[in-house]
Amino acid sequence: MTAAEQRHTEKMRRVQASRRAMMATKTQEKGLLIVHTGAGKGKTTAAFGMAIRTIGHGMRVGIVQFVKGAMTTGERAVFDAFPDLVTFRAMGEGFTWDTQDRARDVAVARAAWDEVARMVADPSYAMVIADELNIVLRYDYLQVADVLAVAAVRPAMTHLVVTGRNAPAALIEAADLVTEMTQVKHPFRGGVKAQPGVEF
Amino acid sequence: MTAAEQRHTEKMRRVQASRRAMMATKTQEKGLLIVHTGAGKGKTTAAFGMAIRTIGHGMRVGIVQFVKGAMTTGERAVFDAFPDLVTFRAMGEGFTWDTQDRARDVAVARAAWDEVARMVADPSYAMVIADELNIVLRYDYLQVADVLAVAAVRPAMTHLVVTGRNAPAALIEAADLVTEMTQVKHPFRGGVKAQPGVEF
Repeated sequence: MTAAEQRHTEKMRRVQASRRAMMATKTQEKGLLIVHTGAGKGKTTAAFGMAIRTIGHGMRVGIVQFVKGAMTTGERAVFDAFPDLVTFRAMGEGFTWDTQDRARDVAVARAAWDEVARMVADPSYAMVIADELNIVLRYDYLQVADVLAVAAVRPAMTHLVVTGRNAPAALIEAADLVTEMTQVKHPFRGGVKAQPGVEF
Repeated sequence: MTAAEQRHTEKMRRVQASRRAMMATKTQEKGLLIVHTGAGKGKTTAAFGMAIRTIGHGMRVGIVQFVKGAMTTGERAVFDAFPDLVTFRAMGEGFTWDTQDRARDVAVARAAWDEVARMVADPSYAMVIADELNIVLRYDYLQVADVLAVAAVRPAMTHLVVTGRNAPAALIEAADLVTEMTQVKHPFRGGVKAQPGVEF
């Protein structure tokens, strides 16, 4: 081993010791309120990635889609392969500019939230995903207070995941884990259309 | 319908028309070079979410993990349920502070990149994911020029996805789609440990 390699080894040994000491202080397990927001891609995709992780551990996931009901997605086909572990409810009837009917959108949002609340109350679900919930909060189709009330009384080990741009401040304040997906570069700007595997 | 509801309907009709006109300009299909970077969570998770979408469309995915080989993940169990569609190679031998041997890390990174290059050259893969590649680029275990050379000659429809914090500027410059995951709030700070479904 050269002197440089020896220095690398010693440095990495110190990093490892420091990381082990840091990780040893992380002992708590609890259900998290998780928010994926921001204008970039990956909010729903990362939530569905966590769903896949959860399924892989043999634990149950409930998914309610608030606005993308009309879109057939590739992940749906995979979730359908695990019917005992995944409950998938596409409650939204499409984007709000497609329905053009506020009263119906409010009713649909309320019904979708009732489904989330039902799943959250059932401790057999390790994770519940309210996909694009932030959109309906943004349009005032649902109140953030209603969301926080359900989150507050959920079972101790249940992860509740909320996605969508423009997460309300009160939701971010209440959350344990918040990630903002920031758009650095997007191919739509270059005329590239939505493609299977990437967008759906 | 009330006057307010009528105004909502008209506004949404305009939004819909404008969106349709915008989306009609997006006609190109092509394989994208996609980068997930930033210090926040969701980089690998969103990449694996795209893998699930791709699988759901019956298309093949190749995944090479550069540094997380030692970690058993929930998503791995799900990928294993689709052996005809997923090739998963955990090439990394753990975090660099665990191996403490630079020469071995360089050799492992090179072997992992060779595997990515082999997958990328095979047009039967619709998507190839180089997970945590940015980490080995950051440590100079591999050169970004080598990565760009392979990306440049890949089949026209192959999506190449690169994850990891600290993506090099040259990679961002070459990419079609770049998302930065920004950490707003993280539960490790509150003493909560990595949990199944969320982190692995």
